[in-house]
Amino acid sequence: MTTTASAYDQLMRDFADGKRAALARAVSVVENHRAGFDRLLATWQPRLGRARRLGLTGPPGAGKSTLTALLVKAYRDAGLSVGVIAVDPTSPFTGGALLGDRIRMESVALDEGVFIRSMATRGSLGGLAATTSEVADVLDAFGMDRILIETVGVGQSELDISRIADSSAVVLVPESGDSIQTLKAGLMEIADLFVVNKADRPGADRLRNELELMLGLRAGSALRDVPAHHGVDLSRKNPARVAREAAKQTDAEHWTPPVLRTVATNAEGTPEVVAALDRHFHYLERSGELRRRRRRRLRDRVMHVVEDRVRDRLWRDAGTNAWLDDQLAALETGASNPFAVADALLARSGTLLTQVTP
Amino acid sequence: MTTTASAYDQLMRDFADGKRAALARAVSVVENHRAGFDRLLATWQPRLGRARRLGLTGPPGAGKSTLTALLVKAYRDAGLSVGVIAVDPTSPFTGGALLGDRIRMESVALDEGVFIRSMATRGSLGGLAATTSEVADVLDAFGMDRILIETVGVGQSELDISRIADSSAVVLVPESGDSIQTLKAGLMEIADLFVVNKADRPGADRLRNELELMLGLRAGSALRDVPAHHGVDLSRKNPARVAREAAKQTDAEHWTPPVLRTVATNAEGTPEVVAALDRHFHYLERSGELRRRRRRRLRDRVMHVVEDRVRDRLWRDAGTNAWLDDQLAALETGASNPFAVADALLARSGTLLTQVTP
Repeated sequence: MTTTASAYDQLMRDFADGKRAALARAVSVVENHRAGFDRLLATWQPRLGRARRLGLTGPPGAGKSTLTALLVKAYRDAGLSVGVIAVDPTSPFTGGALLGDRIRMESVALDEGVFIRSMATRGSLGGLAATTSEVADVLDAFGMDRILIETVGVGQSELDISRIADSSAVVLVPESGDSIQTLKAGLMEIADLFVVNKADRPGADRLRNELELMLGLRAGSALRDVPAHHGVDLSRKNPARVAREAAKQTDAEHWTPPVLRTVATNAEGTPEVVAALDRHFHYLERSGELRRRRRRRLRDRVMHVVEDRVRDRLWRDAGTNAWLDDQLAALETGASNPFAVADALLARSGTLLTQVTP
Repeated sequence: MTTTASAYDQLMRDFADGKRAALARAVSVVENHRAGFDRLLATWQPRLGRARRLGLTGPPGAGKSTLTALLVKAYRDAGLSVGVIAVDPTSPFTGGALLGDRIRMESVALDEGVFIRSMATRGSLGGLAATTSEVADVLDAFGMDRILIETVGVGQSELDISRIADSSAVVLVPESGDSIQTLKAGLMEIADLFVVNKADRPGADRLRNELELMLGLRAGSALRDVPAHHGVDLSRKNPARVAREAAKQTDAEHWTPPVLRTVATNAEGTPEVVAALDRHFHYLERSGELRRRRRRRLRDRVMHVVEDRVRDRLWRDAGTNAWLDDQLAALETGASNPFAVADALLARSGTLLTQVTP
């Protein structure tokens, strides 16, 4: 659709006019890296930064989609527009569950102020994290106030939600309890808040206690830096208590992830999640952490585009491919090896790599 | 350990002498890309190609590890040495299941002719597929006769078993039936054989029928090329039957994946899987497909090393990082965009990229 200048211009105009069909087309162009996607994103760069990007992650079956739908409703009730990106990087074996989630989403999908896109696994040349960021950019440029990014799993190399979102919520259920210990490090790194969903089930309190114990350990070291005028003697309290109080008294400099309880099927606890996300965003702004996170995101984006460009320039080049084919015989016999061939390939590719994209 | 020339030489000697401690150390060096890993692999390149690399993939809970253990036992009974690489690229939420698999593996792990390595998710700079191939190279160079590579999931961008193994078996259970349809394309592309495990459970026959129906569709087109002297009129039979017969009469030019039944908990069906893997390997050799697959693997390896080298050279370079930091302000305001910065970065990185690794 971006093959002709006029189609491209029309899309830009319709997008600027807030037409939803143009948004849907722009998202598709960017998601699939169709011709012209980089020009679209480059043009919209100055418009970015108004939306709050909120990540929800957790194991399959934690109720992330139901919670997402409730958050969408809450933001809509507050007059805010919402974009949702649902990402499932896991095996196609979970296809069934995703379909269920999609159906739950339909209740909010008819609203004009809501845009929902499910993203499938991208090919290895793409990069799921980068593409998710790019689609979020499109929603941001369109003027969405909140962007909810729902992902499966925590701490995966392929998609680290905390590098994509401004705030990240980790959603767990009582059944997740057994695996908390193994997740510890990964969870602590990415969670800005925890949601214990299905909190009416047995084991919810135990899970919450475990999480708060973990957070207490972290708060223990973070609190050493709390100025004395806070006037609270935390030293004699148990770590979970310390963590809870630290979360309440979070100031510009400190944030301890709160642990919230929800029963998403009957909307219980949703206002508290919305409030916690608001609090966290204000903390991000005041502390300078928002700028740090967004700069890191921009850095990630550049690095990804560079690597993408390198792959494009090398592996779509007929000369490079023919040269590589010629090396295979020596590799087969062991007369050469992949490392020597790689070095030689790079040595001969200077002009190709350093060209400027037209 | 490879920091000194003498330690490196010692490892090489011990490895050549078949010492298992040296194998374990070499695998660790390669898996973690420690200093000198590329020299090790380059040195061993001429020794590669003797092992048969066999992939087992399928959903969590399909009993892949139990089946792997049975195959190990069968190969050991035949006097063959076996290396096992168990890869779990999925979320740490499945950590518990992996642990259970490890325990099941212990029954074979004490045997001197068996080497087992579980690989965790690699960081984003590594690349799970490439690292798995490299570890398989180490096992191959050591002289293992069979290398079993066990992975979770099918058709994932991150780890396509059919590009790593010579033969790939997809292991399913009756409970997988519902998701077969969504997997269709991915399954057909990678499976050289199907194993319906836990075949004593309800639904096993239905699953097998579904798979054979799928295969029949594929066989239908493949069989148009079967020479007339095969003397079998396939045209009037049902597709599932056609597929089964085609699998039996597979010749040098054709292969239709057989669908095998196992009950891994009591070893039922294992000899048939071993036999099918042998048949498939002979087909690969006779048809020239083995050489095609292995050339593709070598090509993949070079491409991965090239991309790894590019990342190393760019992102570990202090000058490049400082330059990139200087661009962030313009990105924040929208005065520039990630695509323009990426192009400029590549334009200034020619010498860095085309150097030869010392």
